[in-house]
Amino acid sequence: MHPSTRGGPVAAPVISTAQVTYDTDRAHVFHSWSAQKSLRPMVIERSEGCRLWDGDGRSYLDFTSQLVFTNIGHQHPRVVAAIQEQAAKLCTIAPAHANDARAEAARLVAEVAPDGMDKVFFTNGGADANEHAVRMARLHTGRYKVLSAFRSYHGATAETINFSGDHRRWINDYGSAGAVHFHAPFLYRSEFHSETEQQECERALEHLDSLIRFEGPQAFAALLIETIPGTSGIMPPPPGYLAGVREICDRYGIVMICDEVMAGFGRTGAWLAVDHYDVTPDLITFAKGVNSGYVPLGGVIIGERIASTFDDRVYQGGLTYSGHPLACAAAVATIETMRDEGIVENAAAIGRDVLGPGLRALADKHPSVGDVRGLGVFWALDLVRDRETKEPLAPYGGTSPAIGETLAAAKDNGLLVFNQYHRLHIVPPCIITPDEVREGLAILDAALDVADSHTVSDR
Amino acid sequence: MHPSTRGGPVAAPVISTAQVTYDTDRAHVFHSWSAQKSLRPMVIERSEGCRLWDGDGRSYLDFTSQLVFTNIGHQHPRVVAAIQEQAAKLCTIAPAHANDARAEAARLVAEVAPDGMDKVFFTNGGADANEHAVRMARLHTGRYKVLSAFRSYHGATAETINFSGDHRRWINDYGSAGAVHFHAPFLYRSEFHSETEQQECERALEHLDSLIRFEGPQAFAALLIETIPGTSGIMPPPPGYLAGVREICDRYGIVMICDEVMAGFGRTGAWLAVDHYDVTPDLITFAKGVNSGYVPLGGVIIGERIASTFDDRVYQGGLTYSGHPLACAAAVATIETMRDEGIVENAAAIGRDVLGPGLRALADKHPSVGDVRGLGVFWALDLVRDRETKEPLAPYGGTSPAIGETLAAAKDNGLLVFNQYHRLHIVPPCIITPDEVREGLAILDAALDVADSHTVSDR
Repeated sequence: MHPSTRGGPVAAPVISTAQVTYDTDRAHVFHSWSAQKSLRPMVIERSEGCRLWDGDGRSYLDFTSQLVFTNIGHQHPRVVAAIQEQAAKLCTIAPAHANDARAEAARLVAEVAPDGMDKVFFTNGGADANEHAVRMARLHTGRYKVLSAFRSYHGATAETINFSGDHRRWINDYGSAGAVHFHAPFLYRSEFHSETEQQECERALEHLDSLIRFEGPQAFAALLIETIPGTSGIMPPPPGYLAGVREICDRYGIVMICDEVMAGFGRTGAWLAVDHYDVTPDLITFAKGVNSGYVPLGGVIIGERIASTFDDRVYQGGLTYSGHPLACAAAVATIETMRDEGIVENAAAIGRDVLGPGLRALADKHPSVGDVRGLGVFWALDLVRDRETKEPLAPYGGTSPAIGETLAAAKDNGLLVFNQYHRLHIVPPCIITPDEVREGLAILDAALDVADSHTVSDR
Repeated sequence: MHPSTRGGPVAAPVISTAQVTYDTDRAHVFHSWSAQKSLRPMVIERSEGCRLWDGDGRSYLDFTSQLVFTNIGHQHPRVVAAIQEQAAKLCTIAPAHANDARAEAARLVAEVAPDGMDKVFFTNGGADANEHAVRMARLHTGRYKVLSAFRSYHGATAETINFSGDHRRWINDYGSAGAVHFHAPFLYRSEFHSETEQQECERALEHLDSLIRFEGPQAFAALLIETIPGTSGIMPPPPGYLAGVREICDRYGIVMICDEVMAGFGRTGAWLAVDHYDVTPDLITFAKGVNSGYVPLGGVIIGERIASTFDDRVYQGGLTYSGHPLACAAAVATIETMRDEGIVENAAAIGRDVLGPGLRALADKHPSVGDVRGLGVFWALDLVRDRETKEPLAPYGGTSPAIGETLAAAKDNGLLVFNQYHRLHIVPPCIITPDEVREGLAILDAALDVADSHTVSDR
């Protein structure tokens, strides 16, 4: 329970369980990405489908999927049952052994991957998936440096935060990760002065090729790229861009790693985001949606070329919980349920028929919405003070009263949306219904009135 | 099922579930620390207490606790039930929120920590616990370099494998992690030509101080040390060593991080290994035993000095599954059960009364045992070709036919022991009974005959 939401006479002298949770959290839990003293975390006591309930019993429609991972929704009964059954059978076993849940999860993950990507190395989450993918690339090529994009996020280990391209890298950057950043295409805020998607694509590829030639064509082990960038803005690449990246990687002997930690497993209305593009990377990293985060799990899908490097040569990498049976059982149930219930197809249809059109209608109405981008259940609203100048409603790396008030307006009316800087991300579970989308859009409509009040059009 | 263990006429034309698991594993699972083609993983289908069963129904006494993490034994019914109940209630929630399982786990972890260490940052495992501990130290001090020991293991991210001091660092070392390695005390293979524990302690401290002065006293953010080194040989430090390290860290403003990923939560017969020594580090990292690996979980216990650094300043670090409710519920049940059932006390008594004396008796009998070290359920046998020269039975960073045959002899008789290089680690669950210890020691006795046959005494 948020203290500021309490008030009035106290009915009973007992302390609520939510208050105990809140007080214990404040005494003992150190939270991610925060100054600790000013935190006022919301107590979450229950969740189901696309909804959460706080310590006061208030419900929220979850357009965040938490950190964009509960693709199958909260507490899906089939996944819950699978976890319970696996817990009764075998919670854990060392990575060296073979186990049915681990083997079946690997088989199913390989099945949704492009042809020729048959092996899976399991990790605990997305950051270590990218750690190990880059390690495989370095050992495969004998090279060190890694290309990654500005406006990207790849995790928060020392290496992956440095591959990432948002402000969280800055204070953690000691210049030691071998990271070299490039600009990926993003027409709305083009670095290349482009006027069309095709121009943006061509110029972004030209920039990448030029950067590699100046940095040294023999320098790079890997190019690490989110198939569709997530936290940094949900920018689906223009047609031909990823195929062009593939060509450049081939030209210089660079391992191409597609990070699908956020975009994978239904989020874009396809099993993997690469399915939207005619490209097969060497490695694909995943986490989140693979089992909707019900149990921590991530991994690397390994193409034949890299896999064969380690047929006879030791892969010098590993982790205690690689292929954790409980996590893998949750992945098996998640993938099977998403298939049986047409959940990926639902995400595609929702994006095409309801959420996409609905967000575009909000953009037409609200001057604070500078751009709408996305597909499936993976959408960003780029909020601006001025549509002409595209001045963001909060600075890069920060927030603003305008954004704070907009988020609060949504939350006060029972809607949680994901935010970075000046953007709102509309990323509900893949199971969301048209009615739930419309309910959320109505709340968002009202919240955007608050954002509008901070635009030049309202001055 | 291991193909080499099959044979004779096939009773039925159906393929066993174990064979399906084996074949699926070989087709799709990429294993840690291995060349993939020659792997023959054992299928594990069931586990309970201190035992495992393979795909052929053969049982094994587990003196490995897998990778030294199932401290409470396999499939403890209270922990299994807690996981099932939490799964039914709330599998997952984002780290920003407050949640009862997360808060209670943090409270219980802080309760077993030294006074003044009240905050807990949860991660997915030990490697990212060390990643974040070092990040906290770097942000707290504004310095980069990190001291860690040869003969250590701290994880397998790019940074933590470089902090580690075993051969797995070599191929992953690009000289970029800021790692500087020192020698910790180890009388049996002393770097300091010492003849007594006290001499070894004094000389190791002198060496550490000297190294810091030559590297630059202002260079170091952190000193990262396993309270009792685990995978690299289980060397309990001599009395006074860790207190001396604490003094040196204080002298130079270095953050002292004790890595208790393997040694913590009962393994040594105490809640934390620091309980055996009169020392309070700034940060303690944990994983494994905290919930016996039933669900992936790790974390950092944070002392007041470091915690207060982030009261008003943002901690630039985080991860999607920080404080995962399912993992935390397993930790709560594990800690409560270990308390209620006296499991830590059992580990201490087993070490003192049964396992320690039993291993020393084996050392008296077998010329291949050069040294016995340990406490609680955390023991190493240092196997040598020659007790005089202490020539190891396998080289540093490698293995040998002698070790392979010894391990096979144990396994063939139903005992799994942990191995690195020339050492056998005897690290059963903390719940082990005297009878189970004696059963395992008898098998080990026979296996050591094989090791003996490779010693000079047998030539």
